[in-house]
Amino acid sequence: METTTGLILFGHGARDPRWREPFDRLAADVAESHPGPVSVAFLDMMSPDLQAACLGAVERGAGRIVVVPLFLGTGGHVRRDLPALLESASEVAGVPVTAADAVGEDSQVLAALANYCLRCVN
Amino acid sequence: METTTGLILFGHGARDPRWREPFDRLAADVAESHPGPVSVAFLDMMSPDLQAACLGAVERGAGRIVVVPLFLGTGGHVRRDLPALLESASEVAGVPVTAADAVGEDSQVLAALANYCLRCVN
Repeated sequence: METTTGLILFGHGARDPRWREPFDRLAADVAESHPGPVSVAFLDMMSPDLQAACLGAVERGAGRIVVVPLFLGTGGHVRRDLPALLESASEVAGVPVTAADAVGEDSQVLAALANYCLRCVN
Repeated sequence: METTTGLILFGHGARDPRWREPFDRLAADVAESHPGPVSVAFLDMMSPDLQAACLGAVERGAGRIVVVPLFLGTGGHVRRDLPALLESASEVAGVPVTAADAVGEDSQVLAALANYCLRCVN
């Protein structure tokens, strides 16, 4: 039997509750195509945090978890904060928890961003 | 003669200089297809700020400026900080400076993000 992969979309978080709307929409869209559990998680100011999201994914059957950093730039949050969070979340959840590159590293995401910028003036 | 439009890609900024790499790459990509001046600008911790970027765009011939918020979520930075910055930048630069919706509001950007998330597990 293949291991079920949980997918966690990890964002910064903000005070304004409307900030998370694209993240929730994205998780719902991804869940339509991914057979395992999909959820959001936040570094700060919003719930759930990464550990709680990992525990939730395991409860829903995940035997391993992939975290996608929804950060355009790869700075301290992704390079320093996230690895520490991955390690503690993996310990607590009892399954491997790894991270993908930040979304801003993907050429197709950058192409979509460039296309949007050009549509904003044309 | 048509007014030249300057395009400014506006991001948060971070302490780690590597954070800005996707923003610089994006500005270079957009500049290949946009006939007017294109530059980045940052809210905090990185240069140029929005006002300096607007002055630079006007020096390079912009008669109006469109700012694209490279923020996935629309919270306080986009709803509160940016409008105040647009107003002062427009006054100082002497041309209209308006903002597009944040990139996370665009369905094509969201589709590219969803596609990337799915590629991270498959």
